[in-house]
Amino acid sequence: MAHRLGRYTIEFKSAPSIIGGAGVVGKNEGEGPLGEEFDYIFPDDTLGETSFEKSESAIQREAIIRAVNKANVPMRDADCVFAGDLLNQCIASTFGLRQFGIPFIGIYGACSNMSLSLGISAVFVDSGASNISVAATSSHFCSAERQFRLPLEYGGQRPPTAQRTVTAAGATVVGKHKSDCPSINAVTFGKITDLGIKDANNMGAAMAPAASHTISDFFEDTGLKPSDIDYIVTGDLGFVGSELLIDLLKKDHNIDISANHLDCGKMMYYRKEQDVHAGGSGCGCCASILNTYFLNRIKKGEIKRILVTATGALMSPTSTQQGETIPSIAHSVLISMPDNIN
Amino acid sequence: MAHRLGRYTIEFKSAPSIIGGAGVVGKNEGEGPLGEEFDYIFPDDTLGETSFEKSESAIQREAIIRAVNKANVPMRDADCVFAGDLLNQCIASTFGLRQFGIPFIGIYGACSNMSLSLGISAVFVDSGASNISVAATSSHFCSAERQFRLPLEYGGQRPPTAQRTVTAAGATVVGKHKSDCPSINAVTFGKITDLGIKDANNMGAAMAPAASHTISDFFEDTGLKPSDIDYIVTGDLGFVGSELLIDLLKKDHNIDISANHLDCGKMMYYRKEQDVHAGGSGCGCCASILNTYFLNRIKKGEIKRILVTATGALMSPTSTQQGETIPSIAHSVLISMPDNIN
Repeated sequence: MAHRLGRYTIEFKSAPSIIGGAGVVGKNEGEGPLGEEFDYIFPDDTLGETSFEKSESAIQREAIIRAVNKANVPMRDADCVFAGDLLNQCIASTFGLRQFGIPFIGIYGACSNMSLSLGISAVFVDSGASNISVAATSSHFCSAERQFRLPLEYGGQRPPTAQRTVTAAGATVVGKHKSDCPSINAVTFGKITDLGIKDANNMGAAMAPAASHTISDFFEDTGLKPSDIDYIVTGDLGFVGSELLIDLLKKDHNIDISANHLDCGKMMYYRKEQDVHAGGSGCGCCASILNTYFLNRIKKGEIKRILVTATGALMSPTSTQQGETIPSIAHSVLISMPDNIN
Repeated sequence: MAHRLGRYTIEFKSAPSIIGGAGVVGKNEGEGPLGEEFDYIFPDDTLGETSFEKSESAIQREAIIRAVNKANVPMRDADCVFAGDLLNQCIASTFGLRQFGIPFIGIYGACSNMSLSLGISAVFVDSGASNISVAATSSHFCSAERQFRLPLEYGGQRPPTAQRTVTAAGATVVGKHKSDCPSINAVTFGKITDLGIKDANNMGAAMAPAASHTISDFFEDTGLKPSDIDYIVTGDLGFVGSELLIDLLKKDHNIDISANHLDCGKMMYYRKEQDVHAGGSGCGCCASILNTYFLNRIKKGEIKRILVTATGALMSPTSTQQGETIPSIAHSVLISMPDNIN
């Protein structure tokens, strides 16, 4: 049974396990500092598909197949898959996963999808609603550029605050508690936060306040301190948003995460050499790094406990064209090795 | 604790209750046969907003406020809201609900959103992950036409198989079991089904196979027969899809629902007088009718038990332009008055 802790946090006494996880990336991401970590690097970002949308579907499918293989369960034992992506009507997920024949629960949290799908998966497994759930998400530089910004052929310039949407996908298989797998101990689902940022080329600034709210709610509800957690990992705030988050948590909530904050958007690329401006973004950023770099280190015992907070900007090109601000959201998931629970 | 029944169905022994529900509609929908049923009919489909997207946000917000009021709980007691809509990046929901300050769990199942959000809400309440959840969705004729088909000004002709996207929203408040409220007894989340239909003006045909799969899975898992349930209600198959569903269930699964099948898409309008071709569609169709017509009759004892199966077409304009088929999905929720559980 799940247990509510404080105002916003759900604690899982049964501690569902992450029994498999995989992250696959495109060529550029594979050339970044984490290249060695990923399960597969596609040498060609089209994956041989005839559209970028189909390429993204194929990347997400690949992440799920690899995660389920690593979990060593047959695909048909998965009771449901929670997935979504950035494309209109989430077509990377729906077209990508239609062949699996697994109940599909579509989610939408923009780049917060990884912790959103992982959090709901944990609720389902903890409650007995499913024995095995899969959480997955993806993003693709070319499909995202075409939809959210400009066609690549236009060659538009990006300001220094802009982030690069990563071509990547990640999937996590959640099952009943196992002592030798990382556990999901708690989740804090976030509230929509909108401080009035309108610049779609400065997502980090739009999303940082949402991360600040959810992370401070998590600490207030659980009574934990940042020093109790090895790394407070955010999804894709990038270089601008990450600094803002540290400032906001300190100023507004007197919480200092400067010593152990990592952001997947900062980790994905060599910033200067790869000319990525403010870092990486996109659902696949957190998804691919969480399911490789972090899970591998947690399994090896190098990292004991992380709080993963993927962040999402909930606007659309239509809302931006209509002059609207950018509502944002962040969801936090606490992951640790079992011997570390209490 | 949730309990898995058969291969695909989740049974809730705790039988979470629907403690409030509301449905609000636009002018055309208010002039249909169910006009008297709805909680509010907006005399002007713009709601005084400056864009149709904002109008849809306002309609969804109104449904939630009314549902929460009917449940007689303060808004801040809601632990989370599950919501989504048809617009790119679900902006009707995200912009509509940002002011509430409630944890937001974005979902995407196209027109299956009502039973999708209701099913997940039930899992959360049953498990203790939330005490009170809100499930909501909306659609708006003008925002949908602009995005999925043609700008209204173009005056494009629609073929007879086309359905009219309803301007409506519905919201359901789910709480712990109460003996005087309708209960949620089971949910069957559906698999993505794609039989190769490509005609975006014939959604009913695309979605009927998905409904057929989920409904037959539900009956197989629970051992119930159609005669055990007063009405097998679908979301928005319309006149074409509804007939197809009856045929498919009979031919493929030997299940006869012809005596007690109702479709919200057929119920919403006077077909000829209102010139709606194959009926209504859109997330708000099932959402507004379930939360008024059906819930009111269940509460009064006129109807004992319904199986609500909202259906969604998971394509996007991009996938249609790329010549893709239309993957579809359906999720079923069993609702009954408590004295009727066994």
